[in-house]
Amino acid sequence: MELQNKNLNQCDSFRKLQELSPYSFGDFKEERIHSYDLEGAHYHYNFSCKKVDDEILSALYSLSREQSLADNFNLLANGEIMNTGEQRMVLHHALRGQLDAPVVKDGRNYNDFYREQKDRCADFARKVHSGQIVGQTGKPFDTFIQIGIGGSDLGPRAIYLAMKPYVFSQKKDIPKRKVGFISNVDPDDATDLLMGANPETTLFVLVSKSGSTQETLTNAEFALEWLRDVGKIQEAKKHMVCVTSETSPLAQSRDYLDSFFIDDCIGGRYSVTSAVGVCILDLAFSPEIVQDFLDGAHENDKLCYRTEVEKNPAMVDALIGVYERNVLKLPYTAVLPYSQALHRFPAHLQQLDMESNGKQVSRFGELLNYSTGPVIFGEPGTNGQHSFYQLLHQGTDIVPLQFIAFAQSQMGKDIVYDESTSQKKLLANLAAQIVAFSMGKENTNSHKLFKGGRPCSVLYADVLTPHILGSLLSHFENKVMFQGFAWNINSFDQEGVQLGKVLTTSLLKGEGSSALKSYFSLLAKD
Amino acid sequence: MELQNKNLNQCDSFRKLQELSPYSFGDFKEERIHSYDLEGAHYHYNFSCKKVDDEILSALYSLSREQSLADNFNLLANGEIMNTGEQRMVLHHALRGQLDAPVVKDGRNYNDFYREQKDRCADFARKVHSGQIVGQTGKPFDTFIQIGIGGSDLGPRAIYLAMKPYVFSQKKDIPKRKVGFISNVDPDDATDLLMGANPETTLFVLVSKSGSTQETLTNAEFALEWLRDVGKIQEAKKHMVCVTSETSPLAQSRDYLDSFFIDDCIGGRYSVTSAVGVCILDLAFSPEIVQDFLDGAHENDKLCYRTEVEKNPAMVDALIGVYERNVLKLPYTAVLPYSQALHRFPAHLQQLDMESNGKQVSRFGELLNYSTGPVIFGEPGTNGQHSFYQLLHQGTDIVPLQFIAFAQSQMGKDIVYDESTSQKKLLANLAAQIVAFSMGKENTNSHKLFKGGRPCSVLYADVLTPHILGSLLSHFENKVMFQGFAWNINSFDQEGVQLGKVLTTSLLKGEGSSALKSYFSLLAKD
Repeated sequence: MELQNKNLNQCDSFRKLQELSPYSFGDFKEERIHSYDLEGAHYHYNFSCKKVDDEILSALYSLSREQSLADNFNLLANGEIMNTGEQRMVLHHALRGQLDAPVVKDGRNYNDFYREQKDRCADFARKVHSGQIVGQTGKPFDTFIQIGIGGSDLGPRAIYLAMKPYVFSQKKDIPKRKVGFISNVDPDDATDLLMGANPETTLFVLVSKSGSTQETLTNAEFALEWLRDVGKIQEAKKHMVCVTSETSPLAQSRDYLDSFFIDDCIGGRYSVTSAVGVCILDLAFSPEIVQDFLDGAHENDKLCYRTEVEKNPAMVDALIGVYERNVLKLPYTAVLPYSQALHRFPAHLQQLDMESNGKQVSRFGELLNYSTGPVIFGEPGTNGQHSFYQLLHQGTDIVPLQFIAFAQSQMGKDIVYDESTSQKKLLANLAAQIVAFSMGKENTNSHKLFKGGRPCSVLYADVLTPHILGSLLSHFENKVMFQGFAWNINSFDQEGVQLGKVLTTSLLKGEGSSALKSYFSLLAKD
Repeated sequence: MELQNKNLNQCDSFRKLQELSPYSFGDFKEERIHSYDLEGAHYHYNFSCKKVDDEILSALYSLSREQSLADNFNLLANGEIMNTGEQRMVLHHALRGQLDAPVVKDGRNYNDFYREQKDRCADFARKVHSGQIVGQTGKPFDTFIQIGIGGSDLGPRAIYLAMKPYVFSQKKDIPKRKVGFISNVDPDDATDLLMGANPETTLFVLVSKSGSTQETLTNAEFALEWLRDVGKIQEAKKHMVCVTSETSPLAQSRDYLDSFFIDDCIGGRYSVTSAVGVCILDLAFSPEIVQDFLDGAHENDKLCYRTEVEKNPAMVDALIGVYERNVLKLPYTAVLPYSQALHRFPAHLQQLDMESNGKQVSRFGELLNYSTGPVIFGEPGTNGQHSFYQLLHQGTDIVPLQFIAFAQSQMGKDIVYDESTSQKKLLANLAAQIVAFSMGKENTNSHKLFKGGRPCSVLYADVLTPHILGSLLSHFENKVMFQGFAWNINSFDQEGVQLGKVLTTSLLKGEGSSALKSYFSLLAKD
């Protein structure tokens, strides 16, 4: 099998799509609600309020075949070099299970390697929890702080926050351990977090794949100084473990308490199911709970793998996104979870999507003359309803909306007020928003006119368990991957972050253009 | 004086703007860095990397006169009914000081009213801090939780978070009081926050202007039940104060510990300098610190008031935004603070901007045929550099960027690592980004090509004090207001939030269309 992709605008199905009229909600039939609904692993993807009909869907399914979305996934899972720019395999699916034959290259079995690192994290966490591993003054660790940035921060943080209310209310045997994240090179970020912590019982997880991330190494040094100065802990690195690649400078040091490894086949934004996320999540909760999360991701990966497009929720979601971006010409998508626990999940998806698909060149280096990845933003509902939804309803432009909802709350505590529970109010609000956005409402007073026609989809499930969280993560990762294939781009590199790094380094060395120096003087009053 | 505004596309200056070529960075002269820089109250607005030149600026200044931006502000400050749809005055500037003659209507002096409520909040906070006002079991209050949503949440929360690191590190006489916010009707939001709190020492601030906000009243009941059930506090409302309008149902009750008032002339998203924000901020910090914040806002309001456009940073910022939206046709703006303390400030600005200017009709009810308010999103730098900046640098579309930066950190603690401090690294990164975004970089490898031409501005100041925070808030509030005048829209209503409320209420009563009911059944598994 070989890479089959053309550019999107060379596809017959794409030309066909442009000739079709988008579905408008004028003749909305209720059966759409049930027929435009696909089942993932313990969740549903409902797209009945998207601007698609059977004819458009049929053209989108043709596009999936013309761009070989399923075959590309197959190649990727089997170790083809899909990150063409950096000449790397893309193996984040293997972190949570085996989709196909084991990936073996140059004598290394990657599935075994990832499993081994996962087990090492679990073993370490169990020893910390049991008190077999303790701090330098003999006290058990009860506070765990991740130091990382980008994919080493956003994903692990979002997943931690999403799991915490569930675990702390439903798993009474797990103590409420303190967990924090330091990411920004702004020194106030570390200062603020460490102000309330106890060095004797604090363990840091230092995460940098390359072992050379400027912000992360700086913050690690900040933490080590704090351990030494405030905690009087001389062997400060014994309060720190590393998550890095085996070839990085960090991995060479034996001073740290321990090290766990990832490799170049795991992109930062796809690394939350690797040791990058697993180490801190194991420490925060337990290896069993984290395994449940990984199993959820794997279960949904399997469902998206080799499943025909008509039954593949991540692929259909991806295709409708391409339709909205390239036919309807809509440059953004809002992700709106009706679940407070997911309040940082949009920030993770923002990186996942925008860093993967914000590309201007094809896999083969050709500058593209069509749009690729949209801007992603979002906040939880109902909060957003009292904030930016005004623009979504009555702004001059149309923003596609991706809702997420759960039948039950995570923590189970609720009250009846004004004859309904909070959870019922939450879901009633969401149902009302979907109907308002899509169908709109006429009014002779133009200020009160709702034009409707705002495309909505909703991912819904029973309750936000670790397992279902894993499944939803897989949905978005695979959606983004399929879109990259459709656009014929490399979703797995990030060349756009390089220039800033180079200019920063030159500036800190006292070099660089005079404009660069002038800006720096202006800001730093240097 | 009368309202002068035309629609934007009826303006001669707008036609002129469309004929001019946007500035491109090919012939960038360093003197732009110093000449395209305006001074606000203790901050600067630098627009040297925007796609404007003297000719475009001159046309924008003509537009400001043609649309009477300064005169509209004058009318607004003097009590004209600028919220035409709801027939209300717009008086948030008066919350922090008097710009002109006192606003007196039907015998009420609004300036006096706002001052009185501010003083009442201060007096109350002092009594709580001194122990003169205590909880029902005789213990002093040490935990303060705001219950509110939208403007009663985002602004107060963002400002609290922005001030906290400064106050706790620089004002050693102020104890580190616990402060929390409950907003979402998702019951997990309240459950999670209250899990760690002590009812005996917790005081709630219930904020709802109308006294009828569904989410807020539900969460207030949740809190009262918690006080009764967990805390065994029978007179639970004595652990709660209200911030509401004098005519609201809440204001009628004498059961609450106290009540503070706002009125219809203060929109939710403009209410952070009213009792909505002041009450909780006074309790969290001190009335003196909050006064400093208000003074900063007032100082910058004065600067933006009646100052000619060429020297008015908020007005120039507004005009350049209109240029980007309506001539360059860019549908979004990213707000990117290089300060961890401002990590929720973009969420506040998202509401401020999108709820104010996401409008499809003119003040006079005409459906507009040009774009109004953009989508606003953002996360702090340097974090975003490792996330969505890939798309900003190399995506197929251009996103205008509004940076915010401070010469010094808030907390003053820093380390030298690799020959520079963290603060120096932070600012070097920002300078590098501005140069990379605007100037780009050629490369024969198209994957490494940076096209540049991404318009950047930066608001910069010495250090993020409460005073300067107030000044920056004023900058954005006034920017949004001026843009509304330029677009000839009413920035002060929010009719777009109504339909969802109506549909939710009908659904909870068992009414509504069958589509609405079907969606609800789907989500709730009802």
